[in-house]
Amino acid sequence: MDGRCRAIIERVRPEIDAGRYPIKRIVGQRVVVDANVFTDGHDVVVAMLRYRNAGAETWSEVELTPLVNDEWTGEFVVDRVGVCEYTVLAWVDRFRTWHRDFQKRVAANQVASVDLLSGAELIAEAAARATGDDRAVLESWVKRLGNEEAVHHVQQICDDTDLPQLMKTYPSRDFAAEYDRVLSITVDRERAGHSAWYELFPRSAASAPGKHGTLKDVEARLPYVASMGFDVLYLPPIHPVGTTFRKGKNNATEANGDDVGSPWGIGAAKGGHKAIHPQLGTPADFRSLVKAASRLGIEVALDVALQCSPDHPYVKQHPDWFRQRPDGTIQYAENPPKKYQDIYPFDFETSDWRAMWDELKSIFDHWIAEGVKIFRVDNPHTKPFEFWEWCIGEIRKEHPDVLFLAEAFTRPKIMYRLAKLGFTQSYTYFAWRNTKQELTEYVTQLTTTEAREFFFPNFWPNTPDILTEYLQVGGRPAFMARLTLAATLSPNYGIYGPPFEHCWGAPREPGSEEYLDSEKYQVHYHDIDRPDSLKDFVARMNQIRREHAVLRSIDNVEFHPVDNDQLICYTKSSADKSECLLVVVNLDPHHVQSGWIDLPLDTLDVEEAHPYQVHDLLSDARYLWNGRKNFVQLDPQVVPAHVFQVRRRVRSERDFEYYL
Amino acid sequence: MDGRCRAIIERVRPEIDAGRYPIKRIVGQRVVVDANVFTDGHDVVVAMLRYRNAGAETWSEVELTPLVNDEWTGEFVVDRVGVCEYTVLAWVDRFRTWHRDFQKRVAANQVASVDLLSGAELIAEAAARATGDDRAVLESWVKRLGNEEAVHHVQQICDDTDLPQLMKTYPSRDFAAEYDRVLSITVDRERAGHSAWYELFPRSAASAPGKHGTLKDVEARLPYVASMGFDVLYLPPIHPVGTTFRKGKNNATEANGDDVGSPWGIGAAKGGHKAIHPQLGTPADFRSLVKAASRLGIEVALDVALQCSPDHPYVKQHPDWFRQRPDGTIQYAENPPKKYQDIYPFDFETSDWRAMWDELKSIFDHWIAEGVKIFRVDNPHTKPFEFWEWCIGEIRKEHPDVLFLAEAFTRPKIMYRLAKLGFTQSYTYFAWRNTKQELTEYVTQLTTTEAREFFFPNFWPNTPDILTEYLQVGGRPAFMARLTLAATLSPNYGIYGPPFEHCWGAPREPGSEEYLDSEKYQVHYHDIDRPDSLKDFVARMNQIRREHAVLRSIDNVEFHPVDNDQLICYTKSSADKSECLLVVVNLDPHHVQSGWIDLPLDTLDVEEAHPYQVHDLLSDARYLWNGRKNFVQLDPQVVPAHVFQVRRRVRSERDFEYYL
Repeated sequence: MDGRCRAIIERVRPEIDAGRYPIKRIVGQRVVVDANVFTDGHDVVVAMLRYRNAGAETWSEVELTPLVNDEWTGEFVVDRVGVCEYTVLAWVDRFRTWHRDFQKRVAANQVASVDLLSGAELIAEAAARATGDDRAVLESWVKRLGNEEAVHHVQQICDDTDLPQLMKTYPSRDFAAEYDRVLSITVDRERAGHSAWYELFPRSAASAPGKHGTLKDVEARLPYVASMGFDVLYLPPIHPVGTTFRKGKNNATEANGDDVGSPWGIGAAKGGHKAIHPQLGTPADFRSLVKAASRLGIEVALDVALQCSPDHPYVKQHPDWFRQRPDGTIQYAENPPKKYQDIYPFDFETSDWRAMWDELKSIFDHWIAEGVKIFRVDNPHTKPFEFWEWCIGEIRKEHPDVLFLAEAFTRPKIMYRLAKLGFTQSYTYFAWRNTKQELTEYVTQLTTTEAREFFFPNFWPNTPDILTEYLQVGGRPAFMARLTLAATLSPNYGIYGPPFEHCWGAPREPGSEEYLDSEKYQVHYHDIDRPDSLKDFVARMNQIRREHAVLRSIDNVEFHPVDNDQLICYTKSSADKSECLLVVVNLDPHHVQSGWIDLPLDTLDVEEAHPYQVHDLLSDARYLWNGRKNFVQLDPQVVPAHVFQVRRRVRSERDFEYYL
Repeated sequence: MDGRCRAIIERVRPEIDAGRYPIKRIVGQRVVVDANVFTDGHDVVVAMLRYRNAGAETWSEVELTPLVNDEWTGEFVVDRVGVCEYTVLAWVDRFRTWHRDFQKRVAANQVASVDLLSGAELIAEAAARATGDDRAVLESWVKRLGNEEAVHHVQQICDDTDLPQLMKTYPSRDFAAEYDRVLSITVDRERAGHSAWYELFPRSAASAPGKHGTLKDVEARLPYVASMGFDVLYLPPIHPVGTTFRKGKNNATEANGDDVGSPWGIGAAKGGHKAIHPQLGTPADFRSLVKAASRLGIEVALDVALQCSPDHPYVKQHPDWFRQRPDGTIQYAENPPKKYQDIYPFDFETSDWRAMWDELKSIFDHWIAEGVKIFRVDNPHTKPFEFWEWCIGEIRKEHPDVLFLAEAFTRPKIMYRLAKLGFTQSYTYFAWRNTKQELTEYVTQLTTTEAREFFFPNFWPNTPDILTEYLQVGGRPAFMARLTLAATLSPNYGIYGPPFEHCWGAPREPGSEEYLDSEKYQVHYHDIDRPDSLKDFVARMNQIRREHAVLRSIDNVEFHPVDNDQLICYTKSSADKSECLLVVVNLDPHHVQSGWIDLPLDTLDVEEAHPYQVHDLLSDARYLWNGRKNFVQLDPQVVPAHVFQVRRRVRSERDFEYYL
């Protein structure tokens, strides 16, 4: 420590858990960094934001700007996928202090020769640090200030802007202070930040009833998925399914001979997590599917569920990776009094944990080698956090473009921890946030707290495990409303189809969120050409998402009052106000609802007495609106939502048709 | 790192700047520690709060209690002045997990022998860690659970509470996780937390007009100070005053021959910061004063102003400790266009900074050896933060009972930084917070933000530098109102007297906060027996402070609505509701003001339909009040404040006089 380092840097933000975890950004995004910077006394302090790609030897720098109350701000853009670092450097700048005081002396007509000589001393020091022309220029300034006539030309010296500009290049950093920590950023590729997921069961993808679908069938279904505008196709586990304690239809404890079992009961004689269920096809079929999808702009995402059926090869090869009971049997999964005898959890407290970690990571490596770059991880919160941090960290060192979606429907701090330690995207509580108040509060929490720095939500209206009461009761309007909300509130969203677009709403029993005749336990045939399908509505929604960049950010949302609690209203707008979408959704799937919405004209970027046009991108209807308060009415039996583009008039009223 | 450590500990609070700084507590106070603790899956996690006096080898421990949402809490009491440390430890507890699941199995009538054997295994492991009787008891439990008959007595085993209690003593901590940081606490003696300061100029303490006061005169004035109930007597600098560029009366640039100069122009031929101004007396006089004060329960606090007059011996001995200008002169203090030629600041960028730091610290050491335990530091924010952190840290290593008050009237983050790095107490913006809204906001900020963990405010209605407009205009009622606010809102407060109790309100010129004929530049005589003195009011206020423990905390304040913005109303109450003071102050020094105050009966701990008594500790008047809304009227020409003790009735209505 050098006692002459006098600048103080505090509270650099964003900073997660004292820098223990990185923040997340998408390549090309800005990183706005704030810090408290000050020094003792009245000297001028200079603060630099430093940033670099991890591993680089030198820092890039941008000067921080003081705001108020010793708070400073600066920003840079992350330009490469991987890890980026940032920190802050600050020093007391003697030249700038001198220059500021010199200006005050000139104004007070108080300049003495010694004041000019003090400045000359500092410029001479800078000249010694400079080279070439700069050095010569600085040396000429030293002479100029040292000249005994200089005291008669102080106003000229004071007015010169070249000197302070040049001196910025050669500050004395001898006593510069560094912030305590170097902070880091996980920089992801674009799809981490905005993606539209479609989940389907491959075995239910056959083109005719009564057949077990295959990867080839999935490949044949790709044009359908692409026509709806999805860019991630997520497949539940495609591995051999165990037979011991296999579940029957509707999760029956006993399976019949022809029951196919749950794809999450992974592992059989034919192999485990790196194998493909024989009825689905071959590794070649899988590679073909990945390639065909890629040609349509779709990535295939695989499910990784780190658990074994009793028939998994691991059980024989590594019995010590599972907990042995005193009677010599292996501990199956249970949550007393519930028992899951078809599932053996890994024992992460095994003394052989290092070898087990390596093997589990190798599952991801295997599928990465097969062309998979996105993984949906099943129940990550039931495996140690340290394991995930290591596993994801190691994989991303080699493959920084691999993305991980955490399927953790658990307590908030656990979900956040998983996001902090490396999961790219996270499932959320969206499915259970159905009222206006619930939705507003939840989205506000995700977009205004520290969580927005590391938690990328992925909104799913349904999943094979979640058929919400709202969808069960609300029917087709409910599916349309929830799709609109998911697709416009969150840049990452997904649906489980075809049950979604076919509006499957029947639960296994009243009060259950399980589907009746769930695809988890049996094969279904889906007629994707059903006339009542929502596929065109879905396609339109994804088209709107593609065409409107404001839907690629999550925190550009603003909720607006409506005098009807069944109507929710929000805008998504760009920082420069060049684009604004206005969404209104009728949350009541049963009745026509209407109300007056109250919009801040500043957000819309329109003026009080000037009418503006709202153009419904769903129905193509256009309305001429005036001022803050406007009326809306939505019939759920038609379309329960408006997705308006706000068009501002750019010409005079004589050119009525012209809106921007 | 052992991958089997599965417990997670996040966000231990209080934690200042990621543990860079300690929190502060007064000896005997509780430290409530919160943390987020959880683990993967469903296992039971145990969390321990660990604490110890710094330097101790072993930790004391108390188990944290889970609240909601993975937040846990625990507390301990700091019992020794010095530095205390705390952190959190947590582990996944296999026995408690087994026991919880065992209870569920018993309830579901699902217990198998193997379940009992699993428990027996864990108990056997604990037995190996235990000794003596405990070991024998645990071994008997192993046998009991291993007995093949045990499966028929599971309810008894389940109902037993001794086993889980005993097992708490012998948990397996093999895979315990520690929080990332050990956090620390500066534990101060009581006076750090509540103190009443009285500042006076020794040279104005003479018993007759026209004489330069001495330390002996100060000693003679101690009974007066004690009679008003103060426990800290703070003296501005008592060192030789420089003559070069000495300021005259009312800060005149030129002094007359008999002008005494500012005590802050420290240093002359007779000595510097370790010497005593010859006209004040001798080191023996000073020691006598300290002892006499101590007998009256008063501590003498000295001012340390790290700056020199041009005549200070340091200037000759260490010219390199001051900034040399190119013309060979020494840089005096200035803030262009203002010049302070009578003051040389130290150059903290000197290459001889280490020796200078040592010498500056030795000033404190000198006065500590003379019996001083409290220092008021002048303008600490114009010296490097690193210096203070080192200086205070080193002093307190040897003398943990030494206290420092920071005189930093500067920007909030700088004031907070000084408090974080070691200053015990801090001057505040109180003097400039005069309206109800200003006072409420400021006190709320001090008591509800993180600042309350490290910033001990000291409220001063006036100082030799600060005669606020409110006091200038408001006269005697204003002084009474401000004293009431300072003394009841802040456990630490002080006044500058006798100008305070004599209601000095004349400024040097309109718009100035300087006193006319300020004691900073001339000697005054004060007739402490003036009949219009506020001394009795001050004495009564300090007596109330001594007799009511609720005034020793700052964050037990609650502001209450009054339908008149000139009236401010707040309660100070104990956590157990056994004591409650209710303060109402008329902030208008000119007019009678009245209004209805609205009190939460829960804070008062009274019931709706039961009358209660409020007893004004200032006037001794008693009022019978009912319910939430009550009327108050305050005439500033009498007393502009009520300090009510709320007395709850404890007998029936037939015993009217009995209130608690």
